[in-house]
Amino acid sequence: MNESNKMHMPPRGMRDFYPDDMRIRNAIFNAWRQASLAFGFDEYDACVVESLDLLIRKAGEEIVEQIYSFKDKSGRDLALRPEMTPTLARMIAARQGSLGFPLKWFTIAQCFRYERMTRGRKREHYQWNLDIVGEESVTAETEIIATAVNALKLLGLDKNSLTVRFSSRELLAELLAGLGIERRHYPTVFLTLDKRRKINDTETEQLLINAGIDAGTIKKIFSLLQIESLDQAEKMLATQHTSEHAMETIRKFMTLLDTYGISDMVAFDISVVRGLAYYTGIVFEAFDTCGEFRAVFGGGRYDNLLSDIGGKPATGVGLGFGDVVIAEILSARNKSFGNVSSGRMEVGYMEETQRITAMKIAASFRKKSYNVGLSLKPEKAKAFFSRAGKSGAQQAVFIGPDDIASGSIRLKNLISRLEERIPLSHLCDD
Amino acid sequence: MNESNKMHMPPRGMRDFYPDDMRIRNAIFNAWRQASLAFGFDEYDACVVESLDLLIRKAGEEIVEQIYSFKDKSGRDLALRPEMTPTLARMIAARQGSLGFPLKWFTIAQCFRYERMTRGRKREHYQWNLDIVGEESVTAETEIIATAVNALKLLGLDKNSLTVRFSSRELLAELLAGLGIERRHYPTVFLTLDKRRKINDTETEQLLINAGIDAGTIKKIFSLLQIESLDQAEKMLATQHTSEHAMETIRKFMTLLDTYGISDMVAFDISVVRGLAYYTGIVFEAFDTCGEFRAVFGGGRYDNLLSDIGGKPATGVGLGFGDVVIAEILSARNKSFGNVSSGRMEVGYMEETQRITAMKIAASFRKKSYNVGLSLKPEKAKAFFSRAGKSGAQQAVFIGPDDIASGSIRLKNLISRLEERIPLSHLCDD
Repeated sequence: MNESNKMHMPPRGMRDFYPDDMRIRNAIFNAWRQASLAFGFDEYDACVVESLDLLIRKAGEEIVEQIYSFKDKSGRDLALRPEMTPTLARMIAARQGSLGFPLKWFTIAQCFRYERMTRGRKREHYQWNLDIVGEESVTAETEIIATAVNALKLLGLDKNSLTVRFSSRELLAELLAGLGIERRHYPTVFLTLDKRRKINDTETEQLLINAGIDAGTIKKIFSLLQIESLDQAEKMLATQHTSEHAMETIRKFMTLLDTYGISDMVAFDISVVRGLAYYTGIVFEAFDTCGEFRAVFGGGRYDNLLSDIGGKPATGVGLGFGDVVIAEILSARNKSFGNVSSGRMEVGYMEETQRITAMKIAASFRKKSYNVGLSLKPEKAKAFFSRAGKSGAQQAVFIGPDDIASGSIRLKNLISRLEERIPLSHLCDD
Repeated sequence: MNESNKMHMPPRGMRDFYPDDMRIRNAIFNAWRQASLAFGFDEYDACVVESLDLLIRKAGEEIVEQIYSFKDKSGRDLALRPEMTPTLARMIAARQGSLGFPLKWFTIAQCFRYERMTRGRKREHYQWNLDIVGEESVTAETEIIATAVNALKLLGLDKNSLTVRFSSRELLAELLAGLGIERRHYPTVFLTLDKRRKINDTETEQLLINAGIDAGTIKKIFSLLQIESLDQAEKMLATQHTSEHAMETIRKFMTLLDTYGISDMVAFDISVVRGLAYYTGIVFEAFDTCGEFRAVFGGGRYDNLLSDIGGKPATGVGLGFGDVVIAEILSARNKSFGNVSSGRMEVGYMEETQRITAMKIAASFRKKSYNVGLSLKPEKAKAFFSRAGKSGAQQAVFIGPDDIASGSIRLKNLISRLEERIPLSHLCDD
């Protein structure tokens, strides 16, 4: 990259979207929006600038370190949001008395995190958020997962493309209580679960020893780590005589997913913890089946978030689905979003005096809902058709020397290369 | 506003978009996008975070003071962009060798300015940007104005709603040269022109005296300020024997606008200067015909911007059209964007056991491209229809006690209140 190019790059970790990039982004945004609307979610949004105080109150520590924060000219502590959920909770709390519940809202929100740059990591991304607030049953979790799967389908990714792994913080709490593990060890257990797929048993044991956990407790934690199926979790619970609530919830969750026809995509995985501090119930993460990419989407139930920021208690379920990883998967699978559009047309002309006719032709096609690129100046046929071919237009009209006198013009299909003549009188009527 | 509500407000000058607000915003964005595509513009975007250096290089002083700037954790000087044009120039400069010109690009970009809060002023707004780069003729200016007028039409505002006032920095330079006014006085003259509609002649004279301008020059400046039509400007030029280029350009501009059928919306106004330093040719601003609101859109030709930021020289014409003033105008004219959508449907059920049937009905309507809100739990008919009525749905299906046994369900039009029965077998087929 030469100096001139470097000077014209966006800030590190931020993205430019040229028209070709925009086509992919719009394909993803359109799938998100279409799936949200198909499942009855209403769109909302908020400014990317938030009060720093709101953002640090409930986020995990890692996030707080990564927040882009600054002071405005009045000394207010502001920040670029790293996630949308605290803002959603704030907006709901502000109108909790007048909004109808359960509410189903979605947004496509740009979020910022200052982090080291690796594949699939930028310092900003767009995140589709789906939230249902005010519904206690797992119809909320399943409706949200079904909506996300619908968006994948709209992007050409079938059920075999992804696996949704889930666990339950409630189940975990019951298991930990049943094993008699002290509450002060919970954060270490969560961390160990989160690392389960990345480190081996010896490393895991060392991690627990370093955290000052005694041998007996370590043995118990390992019995938890070794759970690989819902059946095993159920057996452990049965020996503990603790509450069955978490397990019943999970059973209903699976039954509903079955009715949506997507239970085969979903698998229990005790190592799913999710980084954010506010989750309380079922948590889930979706990965491509090859395990090549980072999580495609993730979410879960957060029952305390509204009361934590000073609202009335209300239960919520949310999902976040970023644009970076999905774009990588689509690209790896050679899903292309070609620029040729059947509704796009180019209109050109050879002489300045033909411009008025060309403008009328363009106006006439626009009335028929075509998107029309009208040449800004006279061109030779060759230059015009070369430009039109790159523009994404499927059809082109070029006014040649004798066309206006002949009373008809040539309409050329740029894909099939077929031409037809159209009477000018049909086109220029107002 | 009580303490709890205040705590849940967005930062000062920033906006939340609840679903009702989002409907208006989407109506505006859709009109912008539809008009852009209809006139053959390609969409682009860039991150709202920009290098501070790029933004201050070519902006006017007022803007620099209003930039939200901050340092990231590596000490980089970053900022929230106050406008999109420097970013556009940077993106084009980065790929100037490979892009096809003239290029016609649009974006809908959020922009930030820290300023005092008055009506129609927020600290952020969304701005539709249309730019044509690489075209010297005024077909560029007129194409851009015609596209903006098309967007207004899509929003239900006809040609009588707005006036586009224009001037020409090139014409101004020719007139000033002809009058023999020294170049060092130009900034004062520009400022005086900009204030022309806000202060009287005595105040204007005092402003010029304070700037240290002698009585002879003040007289000349007044002869310029008193120009009220193109004819007057033309007469002054004729006595000066300077170049006719600016005037010829303006004449062609008017002829082309006439072909677009919008010349009656456009009027010459020598007081139109535009704040930004980079304009070089025709400049324009659109106002509602009542003169009640701030400018709806504005723009002009900037011939040096690309070379100023280190790119190869290329001529450009741009327009910025914000979402705040147009929303106020639409609201003042009682243009509403109702929430009832013919494609929206609600599906409810009375008993838990009916949920599976309800899910199948919802899936069936989704396949037919309906947007379907499926109840998350059993409801009484009254509660369901009350909720459905507020949801924006035009139709609703409610599964009552005997419906599944009877083999058909009731489909109710929520507007006309007419009902019909539909066989379940038709709906639940996969």
